[in-house]
Amino acid sequence: MKTGDFVEIEKNGRKWKGIVMPHHAFSDKNIIVLKLEKGYNIGIDAKGAKIKVIKEGKEIKRKKVEIRHDEKKPTIALIGTGGTIASYVDYKTGAVRPAATTSEIAFSMPKIFDICNIEAKVMFQKLSENIKPRDWKKIAREAARKLNEGKSGVIVSHGTDTMTHTSAALAFMLKNLNGPVILVGSQRSSDRPSSDAFDNLIAAEKVALTDLGEVVVVMHGGISSGKCYIHRGTKVRKMHSSRRDAFVSINNEPIGIVENEVKFLQKYRKKSKGKTRVDDVLNENVALVYFHPALRKKDFENIVDGKDGIVIAGTGLGHVNDEIITAIKKLIKDGIMVVMTTQCFYGSVNMNVYSTGRKLIKAGVINGKDMLPEVALIKLMWALAHENAEELMIKNIAGEMNERRSISPPKSK
Amino acid sequence: MKTGDFVEIEKNGRKWKGIVMPHHAFSDKNIIVLKLEKGYNIGIDAKGAKIKVIKEGKEIKRKKVEIRHDEKKPTIALIGTGGTIASYVDYKTGAVRPAATTSEIAFSMPKIFDICNIEAKVMFQKLSENIKPRDWKKIAREAARKLNEGKSGVIVSHGTDTMTHTSAALAFMLKNLNGPVILVGSQRSSDRPSSDAFDNLIAAEKVALTDLGEVVVVMHGGISSGKCYIHRGTKVRKMHSSRRDAFVSINNEPIGIVENEVKFLQKYRKKSKGKTRVDDVLNENVALVYFHPALRKKDFENIVDGKDGIVIAGTGLGHVNDEIITAIKKLIKDGIMVVMTTQCFYGSVNMNVYSTGRKLIKAGVINGKDMLPEVALIKLMWALAHENAEELMIKNIAGEMNERRSISPPKSK
Repeated sequence: MKTGDFVEIEKNGRKWKGIVMPHHAFSDKNIIVLKLEKGYNIGIDAKGAKIKVIKEGKEIKRKKVEIRHDEKKPTIALIGTGGTIASYVDYKTGAVRPAATTSEIAFSMPKIFDICNIEAKVMFQKLSENIKPRDWKKIAREAARKLNEGKSGVIVSHGTDTMTHTSAALAFMLKNLNGPVILVGSQRSSDRPSSDAFDNLIAAEKVALTDLGEVVVVMHGGISSGKCYIHRGTKVRKMHSSRRDAFVSINNEPIGIVENEVKFLQKYRKKSKGKTRVDDVLNENVALVYFHPALRKKDFENIVDGKDGIVIAGTGLGHVNDEIITAIKKLIKDGIMVVMTTQCFYGSVNMNVYSTGRKLIKAGVINGKDMLPEVALIKLMWALAHENAEELMIKNIAGEMNERRSISPPKSK
Repeated sequence: MKTGDFVEIEKNGRKWKGIVMPHHAFSDKNIIVLKLEKGYNIGIDAKGAKIKVIKEGKEIKRKKVEIRHDEKKPTIALIGTGGTIASYVDYKTGAVRPAATTSEIAFSMPKIFDICNIEAKVMFQKLSENIKPRDWKKIAREAARKLNEGKSGVIVSHGTDTMTHTSAALAFMLKNLNGPVILVGSQRSSDRPSSDAFDNLIAAEKVALTDLGEVVVVMHGGISSGKCYIHRGTKVRKMHSSRRDAFVSINNEPIGIVENEVKFLQKYRKKSKGKTRVDDVLNENVALVYFHPALRKKDFENIVDGKDGIVIAGTGLGHVNDEIITAIKKLIKDGIMVVMTTQCFYGSVNMNVYSTGRKLIKAGVINGKDMLPEVALIKLMWALAHENAEELMIKNIAGEMNERRSISPPKSK
């Protein structure tokens, strides 16, 4: 059995027919990836499986795609970090491999070179759940370098799981942006008929050629159409585990929409004329605590023990129970910064309405307003590495906090 | 200055005019609550404030409302736990006080007695962030008692902050329900013109008279209309810190809608003919961990140290990074139960797609499917107190898990 063969695999009384895919970079060694007839891939552990080759795979001649640098077109940078989006689709088998060079990307999606030159660089190949704060720094520096070299914009291809964590981190780290930095990914790998990889990448390219001077996430915004949204990097959350329209701007309208053209829907920061600067110091010694009724004082104290800063995702307007308030008072007396956000996500913290909130204000808790809990955490990591941490926390740095406004919660369906 | 007076308060260079409200049960001692002319209440710390009485308040004669038990009407039970919903509005001042007796409720909202008799009992007066697991047990036992006494249904008035935690707990604890148990609250206190208290309570009453045999949350579903949704108690989350339409069914359509009448939108469990049973044992020694890129192995180990069970809110399809997987493996070897949910909320955990998920399955992590993280935590507390905990965790007990279905994530606005 070799890659490209049409085979039948039998295991534990079940049978599958399909084409054997090349080994995927993210798969375990003994997993056979089969493309089933309906177009989906499944992974089957080879151990104990019976395999019958029904038809051997034919060698398909690869069309050579030459991409020449066109001096009349602008040039953008594409930084690969491990998303399936910048993957290279093997036309013989339809399988996905990480694209390592511009020509492999070209081979996979030649259309993306129609409107600009793309200079691609794969920095690393990571599932995004394995991206660490140190990786945010590497990406920030590379993005700044590319912009300061004169690229019109930078696209960062990224796994979707922690894409919004990275976008928030870049938004705090990159100053005076002289071009857009766009995170893009795909919820469905590009070998699936329903893939959003191509739509998302084309949309990201279009945004990369605008006068935007912010870090944004560009992802599919509907179920069937090719519509993508431009989300502010500090105001977006992955709100579905599998659907293509998983990314949602929270407490904010999207900055814009990309269908055939880019249409901005609200005010945005325009790119600066100076140099992009990087301010990537971080204090990673922080904790994020989601409050719930079974959380005891001792539990809370264990979680926050030895930390320099804490973000709490409280209930409602930003509440915790009385015993946790006692623990918070002590923390703040000891010089630990405590920031309150709401686990509702939608709406703002308001600690003036109930006695619980007033006790928290009195204790010295910082109002995280309408910041998402994880965005507040990343901001706190960044702020704590600066001398004026508290001042930075209460100030809007990168669009992460809004003045009070009413954005609907999701609708029941 | 006395309650009901129209006063001017000056403090730190700011001035407010309004009517002095009676002291609110939840307010600090030195807080003066003023009803401003535009209808909102604010709390002002009396310390250092200059107060001028502009006009003394007049005594307004209270209309006596007599509610007689009508034998031709069904009777429901109303259990007060501290929400503003079952509060009693003082017509003299418009202020909110907890209603302690049926006649006080009657005085506040006489219309709620039109369709049935209400037997009210205030169990406790707590801000819901202070509700503890032991309170869930008290409410469960009282609800079962009332149903087994022959009440048509039970309404539990509850603060909104942890209402869905209580609804999930009751759903696991109450077996063979012979009537509906409805949690209801209000996002805006009943002294505000925009209050949802009355609409929600009337809707809850209508649901209490149906043949439903489940624990549900009944709350406002739109911005302006009187429409309320009936949410399954294990599938609902507070998704906005302040709006009236904050409660949203997640990975599920609401069970029904209440406008003038109750209309069921999907299948539901009908009330049984037997007795309602209470199974309220809990193991509270659990932890809920939201994964993020800065969470280190050591942090994770601190949080879960000494616990009997852990719920993780992973990224995307249910992922954590490789170092946390190492820690999880050790936990499971030591006999600790680890359940995976998704911090996306919408969509299901699926640990078969990527290598990370397969590693987690191999380690023995339990698939929380489309359960909300906090619901999975409450279920785990309940399951761990039973002998067949693992079996209970993977089984659908109270509508908390669905077979795979596609429910849209919230839309970007």
